[in-house]
Amino acid sequence: MKTRIGIMGYGNLGRGVELAVNAAPDMELAAVFTRRDPAGVKILSEGVPVVSADAAPEWKDRIDVLILCGGSATDLPEQTPFYAQMFNVIDSFDTHARIPEHFANVDAAACKAGKIAMISVGWDPGMFSLNRVYANAVLPCGKDYTFWGKGISQGHSDAIRRIDGVKNAKQYTIPIEEALEAVRSGANPELTTREKHTRECFVVAEEGADLARIEREIKEMPNYFADYDTTVHFISEEELQRDHAGMAHGGFVFRSGATGKNGEHKHVIEYSLKLDSNPEFTTSVIVAFARAAKRMYDEGMRGCKTVLDVPPAYLSTQSGEELRAHLL
Amino acid sequence: MKTRIGIMGYGNLGRGVELAVNAAPDMELAAVFTRRDPAGVKILSEGVPVVSADAAPEWKDRIDVLILCGGSATDLPEQTPFYAQMFNVIDSFDTHARIPEHFANVDAAACKAGKIAMISVGWDPGMFSLNRVYANAVLPCGKDYTFWGKGISQGHSDAIRRIDGVKNAKQYTIPIEEALEAVRSGANPELTTREKHTRECFVVAEEGADLARIEREIKEMPNYFADYDTTVHFISEEELQRDHAGMAHGGFVFRSGATGKNGEHKHVIEYSLKLDSNPEFTTSVIVAFARAAKRMYDEGMRGCKTVLDVPPAYLSTQSGEELRAHLL
Repeated sequence: MKTRIGIMGYGNLGRGVELAVNAAPDMELAAVFTRRDPAGVKILSEGVPVVSADAAPEWKDRIDVLILCGGSATDLPEQTPFYAQMFNVIDSFDTHARIPEHFANVDAAACKAGKIAMISVGWDPGMFSLNRVYANAVLPCGKDYTFWGKGISQGHSDAIRRIDGVKNAKQYTIPIEEALEAVRSGANPELTTREKHTRECFVVAEEGADLARIEREIKEMPNYFADYDTTVHFISEEELQRDHAGMAHGGFVFRSGATGKNGEHKHVIEYSLKLDSNPEFTTSVIVAFARAAKRMYDEGMRGCKTVLDVPPAYLSTQSGEELRAHLL
Repeated sequence: MKTRIGIMGYGNLGRGVELAVNAAPDMELAAVFTRRDPAGVKILSEGVPVVSADAAPEWKDRIDVLILCGGSATDLPEQTPFYAQMFNVIDSFDTHARIPEHFANVDAAACKAGKIAMISVGWDPGMFSLNRVYANAVLPCGKDYTFWGKGISQGHSDAIRRIDGVKNAKQYTIPIEEALEAVRSGANPELTTREKHTRECFVVAEEGADLARIEREIKEMPNYFADYDTTVHFISEEELQRDHAGMAHGGFVFRSGATGKNGEHKHVIEYSLKLDSNPEFTTSVIVAFARAAKRMYDEGMRGCKTVLDVPPAYLSTQSGEELRAHLL
């Protein structure tokens, strides 16, 4: 019997989950839930009901894993503990600093309900976290480096949009090639924030706005831009839509470490992603972990889990025997 | 209480395990077992007994995990099932084609004895396998590529040494940069064996040997060299010892795949290793998985396992809470 997946929220992530579920031979999409009027939500799959989020509880015996496709700022902190009371759930909560708090809330709900809830699944947190944990365990004496990009940062784009006189904006985070090369060489460099990434902003200003002031406000914004070399380009809305609508992203995780009697042998582990579509890759990761969540639930595991708790073999449609013969 | 590690066999791997165990705050080296005369085996650690392999069974209650440091050709197929009758064991069996058979033998022994036995731990099989499985699960529609090197292949060096008139030899496997770049670009190239790696041989010939014949025999050797562009250099034993005694190695695992309604979004996942010391990195991986083996045994798991069965968090000295706060 196929694993029955529900999707909560139908934006870029929801659509990505739908595509990944349709590509998985062992899964089927049971329903898409939305807070909008279901009649106005067109999905790709035929014959799959679009249902009001309010009616989700009625589906609790017809869905094996509910995938929560909301945002980390306000949706998931409420939704994940709420739906873990009635479903096995999985989310892509990505506010690193608040993961311990989110874990505690979700764990309490899932344990009480006897469900499994997997949080913070995607690529960072997610695949990058896995690589950090493996590399740290293998090279306990060493240094971690994470670089992001080139890709659009939603948070930084939003921050620009909040500036007076800005109509629209996209911000690219770009890793600095020299820094990547220095890390790759095994030199274990100490890198400042400015030495790791640059920020490039494409801004649509309102007519008559003071461009010099906007540029200054961007470049001086604490946390977001002040510590970086930032470039600002003013363009038209048409140019923004035409040239900057893509959702490419990526990044690099390194661990550079040493072994030997006196640390004389250097080793560099590098993991990198080049993604045409950030949401489609993120949801491809989520769907693989939804497979694992179902298996872990069937084996009796309960409570909140992260990617770090999942045996890799559980992500695959192949049996242990097939994996050992072909991929080990 | 620290995890008590035993080492079976004290060559490059055994010494690497010793270094990694000494670097692990939660482990202690209980004993080193050898088939040689123990009196003639000098180890790095003070106060750790060197014991005849014949006496190993007497140590079965004083060791939590016995790490088997023999070779895959003849040692491990016998040793791993044998010692799994009395110890939790871990090995680095790396003959890919024979893993299913080895798994079955070891599983039978470990299940009968109520022990855990982890096989094929290292970087390939090992870290590379993990990356293949993760990437295949995340991008089911795609193509895998594995490249090795630059590094010395023991098997190819041995094959050269078996040629009449050859005193000594080292063979480097070298990935071809253009092939790496083609894969990295997401072009999904079909690559022949010749297009992926070159082979470079450093050969010490016996005095008066027919060098042209040796070179021809190397280059025409089926499986080992015939399908590759191979370079042969004749050098002196002194040069071989001086310039080619290093144990650097490395490699690359890629998965290049697509998502989207018509596969219109391409993604490239790349994992790479640059290692100054192949045996020390291999044993660093083994020791991290020995930590996991102990935990899995303590939780009641039994039988043969591979890296694919291990939740990543089990490899770490950090608690789940610490990992979620700092590495997730």
